[in-house]
Amino acid sequence: MKESIPRKTVYRLSLYKRCLDRLPPGESVTVSSEALAKVAGVKPTQLRKDLGYCGQFGKRGLGYEVATLRQRLADELGRTSLQPVVLVGAGNLGSALLRYEDGFAKEGFEIAAAFDAQPKKRSREVRTPVYPLSRMGRYIAEHDVKMAILCVPGVAAQEMCNNLVAAGIQAILNFAPIVLQVPAKVMVNNVNLAIELENLSYFIR
Amino acid sequence: MKESIPRKTVYRLSLYKRCLDRLPPGESVTVSSEALAKVAGVKPTQLRKDLGYCGQFGKRGLGYEVATLRQRLADELGRTSLQPVVLVGAGNLGSALLRYEDGFAKEGFEIAAAFDAQPKKRSREVRTPVYPLSRMGRYIAEHDVKMAILCVPGVAAQEMCNNLVAAGIQAILNFAPIVLQVPAKVMVNNVNLAIELENLSYFIR
Repeated sequence: MKESIPRKTVYRLSLYKRCLDRLPPGESVTVSSEALAKVAGVKPTQLRKDLGYCGQFGKRGLGYEVATLRQRLADELGRTSLQPVVLVGAGNLGSALLRYEDGFAKEGFEIAAAFDAQPKKRSREVRTPVYPLSRMGRYIAEHDVKMAILCVPGVAAQEMCNNLVAAGIQAILNFAPIVLQVPAKVMVNNVNLAIELENLSYFIR
Repeated sequence: MKESIPRKTVYRLSLYKRCLDRLPPGESVTVSSEALAKVAGVKPTQLRKDLGYCGQFGKRGLGYEVATLRQRLADELGRTSLQPVVLVGAGNLGSALLRYEDGFAKEGFEIAAAFDAQPKKRSREVRTPVYPLSRMGRYIAEHDVKMAILCVPGVAAQEMCNNLVAAGIQAILNFAPIVLQVPAKVMVNNVNLAIELENLSYFIR
């Protein structure tokens, strides 16, 4: 069942949930697909198709009950708050993300531990425990961690990725500027800030 | 001309360029579309279609000359190193990004200035100059800045976005967890770390 919802649709379901959370409380008992689509920046047809994956519950012409829709989305997306995450590579960007831990915590994610080639140096800079890379595999296995944030330089990323996968990691949020080669069962989402900026600057020249 | 290349294609062109930069120097005179596609994590047909936007220069069966292809991509994507960027909202994530300035600089972007409601407090934490929000419009106009990174909380994001657009900003890298409503001429790329993590955790349950 789960696998039948496309990845991009799951993104947008997350987005719709956040849009609903931001509607003015009380006054919005129902919301039309047009209004919600506008807030989410998608076409109404796209929204209706996406919500179709969560079952039939909009009434034609009446819109969606906000409370019901919010609950359906939350049920579908599930609780993520119990999901511990490890971070690998506490250099420039990695330690920046570790300092952003309050922001992650608010969204239900906890960076349980970080791993770096220079754990002592990094430990002075952040509150999250930073361990040597040699402890990574055992930590992941012992704590049954399934998700990792990868922030090592490009040259080290594939090897570190292989280590993560071997240790049992199933999903990687990759900030390293390379395309990781992983087994089909492992999910990778890429965040490449340089490419985002390059993409924007291309269009404004 | 420019506008005829789809946004997602421009993303992938950036990606191909980075993949070429990472080929072992010297030994790769040519690269097949299959090999480059694998490194980039796309299908060969996708790669060939994307490169078609940069003109015809692959010879069937012979692959691409690495140096030529790299130059074409660089020409197409243009120099981005002269593109100054301002950052708005130097809180948790914003100041994390400011501390990552070396990483941006390496990719050819300079965060010229940051703007925040508490400029004095933020200035103690980062090297980039942090100015009060009241100076933002004038700074953007005077320095002819076209790109902004938006890191304010969701509730403040739309208003700040409106101010940026009014000041002349044409492209926004948005980290605020809302969908910004902008005029058609303004480009917005969204980076939502919470949604990336939620998306991953959905698929590993």
